[in-house]
Amino acid sequence: MASESGELEVPANQKVERLLKTNINEEFARKAESLKPELHQWIDRPLSVIKFEPDPDAFFKCKAVQIHTIEELSKLSYGKGDQLILDFGSHRVGYFSINLGVDGINADAPARLRLTFGEIPYDVTENLHPCNTWISTSWLPDEIINVDWLPTDVDMPRRYSFRYVKIEVIDASPKYKIRLSEVKVRAVSAISSDAASAVSPLESTDQELISIDRISQVTLRNCMQTVFEDGPRRDRRLWIGDLRLQALTNYCTFKDFSLAKRCLYLFAALPRGDDSLPACVFEKPKLSAGSDYIVDYDALYGPMVYDYTVASGDLETAIELWPTILGSMKKPLVHLDADGKFDSKATDSWKFLDWVAGLETDAGMHGLVLFCCKEINKLAALISKPPPFTETVEKMTTAAPLFYDKDLGVFVSGSSRQVSWSSQAWLALSGAMDAPTCLQALTKVMGDPTAVKPLTPYAYHHVAEALARCGGEEQCLKLMRDYWGGMARAGADTFWEFFDAEDSRRSPYGDCHNNSYCHAWSCTPSYLLRVVLKDYLAATSKA
Amino acid sequence: MASESGELEVPANQKVERLLKTNINEEFARKAESLKPELHQWIDRPLSVIKFEPDPDAFFKCKAVQIHTIEELSKLSYGKGDQLILDFGSHRVGYFSINLGVDGINADAPARLRLTFGEIPYDVTENLHPCNTWISTSWLPDEIINVDWLPTDVDMPRRYSFRYVKIEVIDASPKYKIRLSEVKVRAVSAISSDAASAVSPLESTDQELISIDRISQVTLRNCMQTVFEDGPRRDRRLWIGDLRLQALTNYCTFKDFSLAKRCLYLFAALPRGDDSLPACVFEKPKLSAGSDYIVDYDALYGPMVYDYTVASGDLETAIELWPTILGSMKKPLVHLDADGKFDSKATDSWKFLDWVAGLETDAGMHGLVLFCCKEINKLAALISKPPPFTETVEKMTTAAPLFYDKDLGVFVSGSSRQVSWSSQAWLALSGAMDAPTCLQALTKVMGDPTAVKPLTPYAYHHVAEALARCGGEEQCLKLMRDYWGGMARAGADTFWEFFDAEDSRRSPYGDCHNNSYCHAWSCTPSYLLRVVLKDYLAATSKA
Repeated sequence: MASESGELEVPANQKVERLLKTNINEEFARKAESLKPELHQWIDRPLSVIKFEPDPDAFFKCKAVQIHTIEELSKLSYGKGDQLILDFGSHRVGYFSINLGVDGINADAPARLRLTFGEIPYDVTENLHPCNTWISTSWLPDEIINVDWLPTDVDMPRRYSFRYVKIEVIDASPKYKIRLSEVKVRAVSAISSDAASAVSPLESTDQELISIDRISQVTLRNCMQTVFEDGPRRDRRLWIGDLRLQALTNYCTFKDFSLAKRCLYLFAALPRGDDSLPACVFEKPKLSAGSDYIVDYDALYGPMVYDYTVASGDLETAIELWPTILGSMKKPLVHLDADGKFDSKATDSWKFLDWVAGLETDAGMHGLVLFCCKEINKLAALISKPPPFTETVEKMTTAAPLFYDKDLGVFVSGSSRQVSWSSQAWLALSGAMDAPTCLQALTKVMGDPTAVKPLTPYAYHHVAEALARCGGEEQCLKLMRDYWGGMARAGADTFWEFFDAEDSRRSPYGDCHNNSYCHAWSCTPSYLLRVVLKDYLAATSKA
Repeated sequence: MASESGELEVPANQKVERLLKTNINEEFARKAESLKPELHQWIDRPLSVIKFEPDPDAFFKCKAVQIHTIEELSKLSYGKGDQLILDFGSHRVGYFSINLGVDGINADAPARLRLTFGEIPYDVTENLHPCNTWISTSWLPDEIINVDWLPTDVDMPRRYSFRYVKIEVIDASPKYKIRLSEVKVRAVSAISSDAASAVSPLESTDQELISIDRISQVTLRNCMQTVFEDGPRRDRRLWIGDLRLQALTNYCTFKDFSLAKRCLYLFAALPRGDDSLPACVFEKPKLSAGSDYIVDYDALYGPMVYDYTVASGDLETAIELWPTILGSMKKPLVHLDADGKFDSKATDSWKFLDWVAGLETDAGMHGLVLFCCKEINKLAALISKPPPFTETVEKMTTAAPLFYDKDLGVFVSGSSRQVSWSSQAWLALSGAMDAPTCLQALTKVMGDPTAVKPLTPYAYHHVAEALARCGGEEQCLKLMRDYWGGMARAGADTFWEFFDAEDSRRSPYGDCHNNSYCHAWSCTPSYLLRVVLKDYLAATSKA
């Protein structure tokens, strides 16, 4: 998800909704706290000093060229106006440190440096300021530091998310230049290097898929800190929709059940006054609910507990969280009309599904809520509770065809009868209609240039999973090769918050410098390849 | 003194001179270390939130107007683009801290602030960047900070020197503004509040002199840290010429003999290869000699030990430092020609006396070196050594009239026969000719608009002291009222590195934003009033 939804996106009634928030469930909060991981730490060093040269064929229109080996660095010196770019070889999340030495007679004045931590080339090849963005520019990954006494070690106290570090010497003094050595990052993650190495290889010899799987895992690992962050660069927060996809990918890779359980309890610790759940929570400076409320995220809490229970075998947690799950469905179900059709206009609470502008959400939300009801019913069976939504499922299943336009062969949404990929995806995932019909609808919109396409990897994931679940495994693979494969071909070390193969500067925030390039909701290819497409890949590799 | 003398001022052979530097005298270094003071600390808080309004009659063309009481501050909130100025009421040296609170739904993004620590209004009423200066812009007193998790306390790790703090909110987020509370400075000095309060009142009822004396003491106290710094804002270093004036003022006010002794040993620990002394030393990150060498500063080391011995009664230190003193005179005396006249061209080592451009230094240096020889001879008598410079004093005294132009009635210097205040001052202080002649010469140049005037308070001090020592006490007082009194009338809380009553923007560094406004070499009025003019003030107050 993204931060500071701001005036552009947040419904006006959010302030009212905020008032519903009640006190923290201390027992759940304590349980979450007890599950807080000690982060694993390791030291990584830059591989080389580079510059970027123009390259019209590259996605970012430039390519990195080594200008010094890292061994040469400590012999170089940098004075006022000089700069250099260090390349760590891949994406890191952690704490940067460096030794600033002196080349000169005396370090007779402080050193003033600007450090910029880049996930992609633009971060370090361009000036980040001013930034034409409607979210906060305080996310921009640059710092100006003043260092009084050289030589000295400088340990940057904040955590950064980067592959490149640009260091600009704003000033030293006429009497000295700066030498740089001991450059390193103390990388951090809930997942140790051993645990990362222990993930079984992808059962495929397809190098593209192996690469996509690897990038997915790095993305996920770098987002796994003391919570599943949405992005370690921005906004470093735990969102339900993102968490669900991260957790699914985690279960088939790192298998960190403890961190997933912690995150389930963090939300359960913060129910709002009407038993709904906040869309996100803040861990720091103290546990608190984000003010954002999103209907679909609320509904997805139950399926997330179901996924956890199946993966971990831990029934107790599901039993303890059962009342929270039931609470989380109240508000979504308020949106059902007399026919059992989801009506987004029933409240002005935020229905998200995707960041794409103007998305009609009735159809997609119908599919999503129906999907959630079914998953929760399955969870009930696991923990020997009566399924709470049998009747609802029946009613919504009956209503689902009302979204289907027989003439067009697709699901439509809203009074404008909007045709979007997301509507097809969620109605397909809900199993409201038979798989061939759903696959046909998906295939149709994907070939229709006037259909509303997804904007985010989050929405692309649901399309990809829907394809595979409806027998469109080959189409799913093609979409993955186009979309996530496109990021890989563009040079991604980790998958991005957004990707438009045609426009490397596209941003939902007005300026790509405020995009996040290691973003949790794009880490799902490992889940798709290892779980959803597992049998298909096995079958096709044998064939 | 000033930092980074840079290409403009440092003679080309300094690099050669640097090679003369030998190893540290570890015993003296240990002695200095053992005398390092624990700094006294106390908490001060701002008095109000102010703005500056135009005021054409004020020196800085503006006046401070309170817009909020400090009690109101914590109820205010500041969002993107907002700023405020806090006024601590007077000059402080120390560590700034603040609590950043949240006014809004969620602090869902970091806060990015610029903090600017101002000694004078221009520091906080103007943009400091770009700064048109030939010394390092890294001295500029502004910081940009990014704070991840609000609410939180922010403790700025560097020491600042300021009265005003400007806080600009570069960005917060659409969801919150920042509240400020717990604003404070942990002020530091080698001199405790008790010791500062224990200084005897000035024996005068003249309010102007009382005010000048008070400002001098604040200036000195704020420069007294673990060494006598030249300026706590810039360049925070121990220079011989500055130290001598600070120590003299200290002996008649705070009487911190230990810190003075420490500083004498710091220089003695760092003799250069030819036994000369560096013009300045660096305490941090480890004790080392500055690369600057200044002939006059070298020579002034002995008189400084003499002053210390007289003030403290500690003969042992003088005995231990005696070889250092003899070493420090070697290079200055190399400049005497066959007639015993000081010849600046004899070496191209730096002769300072003042920052004023184009100063001819033969005459002034002749006076200064003669003065030093006499002081060292007096010290020899105190510690029962044979006076080392009897012959030199005789020779230089005989030569001194060669600088005197009988027709003009002033001392002249160099082949251009330059007439400057500094030449008169140092030859007067040396006692080379009779007091009435010297006073007449001083009076003459001070009435001659073509004479080279001093630029720095350092040079003004020597003129003022020379006047008083030659019977011109009333002229000394007038100069003090004009010069230091002028700073007081311009609003100085502490005396400045430079002052030009006609031009509030004047700077020897190209840009007044890089001036220092609490600078040790301007702290001497307390010494002049309490020692040099003591009898005169007593006599005139009785009259």
